[in-house]
Amino acid sequence: MAYVDQRELPARLLERCARTTDEVVEAIAALAVRGAPLIGVFGAYGVALAARRGAAGEPLRAEALRIRAARPTAVNLMWAVDRMLAAAEAGADSAALLAEAEAIHRETRATDERMARFGAELLPEHGVLLTHCNTGPLATGGAGTALGVIIEGHRGGKRLHVYVDETRPLLQGARLTAFELREAGVPATLIVDGAAAATMRAKGVQAVLVGADRIARNGDTANKIGTYGLAVAAAHHGIPFYVVAPRSTFDFSLGGGAEIPIEERGADEVRAFGGRPTAPEGMPAYNPAFDVTPGHLVTAIVTEYGVLRPPYLESIAGLELRPTIGSLMQTGASAPGPFKQRGPHERSGTERVG
Amino acid sequence: MAYVDQRELPARLLERCARTTDEVVEAIAALAVRGAPLIGVFGAYGVALAARRGAAGEPLRAEALRIRAARPTAVNLMWAVDRMLAAAEAGADSAALLAEAEAIHRETRATDERMARFGAELLPEHGVLLTHCNTGPLATGGAGTALGVIIEGHRGGKRLHVYVDETRPLLQGARLTAFELREAGVPATLIVDGAAAATMRAKGVQAVLVGADRIARNGDTANKIGTYGLAVAAAHHGIPFYVVAPRSTFDFSLGGGAEIPIEERGADEVRAFGGRPTAPEGMPAYNPAFDVTPGHLVTAIVTEYGVLRPPYLESIAGLELRPTIGSLMQTGASAPGPFKQRGPHERSGTERVG
Repeated sequence: MAYVDQRELPARLLERCARTTDEVVEAIAALAVRGAPLIGVFGAYGVALAARRGAAGEPLRAEALRIRAARPTAVNLMWAVDRMLAAAEAGADSAALLAEAEAIHRETRATDERMARFGAELLPEHGVLLTHCNTGPLATGGAGTALGVIIEGHRGGKRLHVYVDETRPLLQGARLTAFELREAGVPATLIVDGAAAATMRAKGVQAVLVGADRIARNGDTANKIGTYGLAVAAAHHGIPFYVVAPRSTFDFSLGGGAEIPIEERGADEVRAFGGRPTAPEGMPAYNPAFDVTPGHLVTAIVTEYGVLRPPYLESIAGLELRPTIGSLMQTGASAPGPFKQRGPHERSGTERVG
Repeated sequence: MAYVDQRELPARLLERCARTTDEVVEAIAALAVRGAPLIGVFGAYGVALAARRGAAGEPLRAEALRIRAARPTAVNLMWAVDRMLAAAEAGADSAALLAEAEAIHRETRATDERMARFGAELLPEHGVLLTHCNTGPLATGGAGTALGVIIEGHRGGKRLHVYVDETRPLLQGARLTAFELREAGVPATLIVDGAAAATMRAKGVQAVLVGADRIARNGDTANKIGTYGLAVAAAHHGIPFYVVAPRSTFDFSLGGGAEIPIEERGADEVRAFGGRPTAPEGMPAYNPAFDVTPGHLVTAIVTEYGVLRPPYLESIAGLELRPTIGSLMQTGASAPGPFKQRGPHERSGTERVG
């Protein structure tokens, strides 16, 4: 299965091919394929690929579980692999498993479009935004999450200017988000991560938008390292802090963020860049790939069902009860209606309409 | 005049020589020589060098003012050049100007030692600290400011572990602070700047220590970009936030930080690393070299006279009235006594003793 190696962007568009489960796992673990929703889609295709290569029954399950464990934090990967395993256990053959992976991909695109429309309504008509890491088409295989919202707002005629955190250590902001915003024609300026708080104050940032890798029932949100500090700074400046994430990013089994496993990656990501050392040889480094932002710092969460607001224990419980986009698409029903929309500064609970 | 080109550290110890005022200005502007106190010392020697090359009167003044303007934010450079100009206007010849520069250098070392001792008393006997940028011997030509305090605490037997922000864009933390802490034998771990807030929470950081480039009468502190976000995060976690800076870093003419000129540097510092692009070509970048932390987020300021506490309008006014270390060293009097010391969590005004 072909994929773009995102480690090489924007310098070059290198297409690679994963032929085995080992190669699928390696592409995810090495961040050649990254972005919580995208690794869900990619992982699903990986299970279909294993089936096509002849695996079935327990061997297929074992290969699927290896893919599921390729990275520990983003729950979308686990959600997608579990869905593939459920299909296999229900008797799906290789062709049906490929169809299931394609359905996951299709639903991701539909989901992204809905999040983009709901989120764009929260944006000012004319204003300054700040974002972190990469949450555009490269991260999801669809329109994106946070960046999908921003690009939708721009296309809808809003006059937006986006400050982009470069997002050390792997520079997804500088490499990928800067690239996607330029492609979309959205005015954007790159900053180092340490400049975010000063930029909020100096440039009048009106909203911070980020994606998510896993969200607990109370709204605690794991996302790329640096997100927590951004949320603290946004709260300090009274700036709304929006998380944009599909239902598949919610882990309804977790009561709070302390239970989310946080991936720690190698020290060399911190103490070298492009193979060139940036620190003394052997210098210890602490390199958590994610941090957890407490729900009380999150102004709202944009989902494909609409905008969730505090108290999250209630609004996320409501989300859990909603029919999935996929089940409605399969039965030919219209897409689910949104939650009742509120103004961007209201912080009451959630009601459903329709 | 010989100097170490800090841009090359820690990969190699490259000694260069500045022979002209142009070369002195270039070394400061390009950050080959950096650190607020050190560029003061270096600028003073630069004025002495110009005098030795034959400049005097108005031409010497013109060369001195070019050095004074090499970077705009750190007031130590202006303070040191003004002191050299005052000596020249009082009739100092080339030899006397060299002696004055040497006195500034000697006083900086004495000042650093005093700050280190006062500051070390604020540190826990056993605990975790966090620092930003580089504030050690490389930054001052003496023991350092914030790092001098940490190293003094370590030497005094405190069991400290230091998390070091790498400090993008120029990585002074990764390149210089990591190097100096290893040389001093202080246990230290490198993090990306975006990990600071998560590290405060996960690792139980007990104090944040930083240097300063300019401090206004109300305690507002200009320091390396990223400092403001750290101060906001420290306040959010209830962690003391200490600024360590000599009297020469205070700008008694400024009522508040909004009046501090903030240097903006080129976009290539952000969108490239080591000559390798990290962002799409031509991507705009916003690259303020400093930010301003409001005095109300600063728990205390460690000076060579002791520890200043809020209300800073009072304690900094008291500092202004103190005799300089230099005037006491020159007259053979003992060094000035400290302000009355307080426990690290008291936040009352300042009194002087002796």
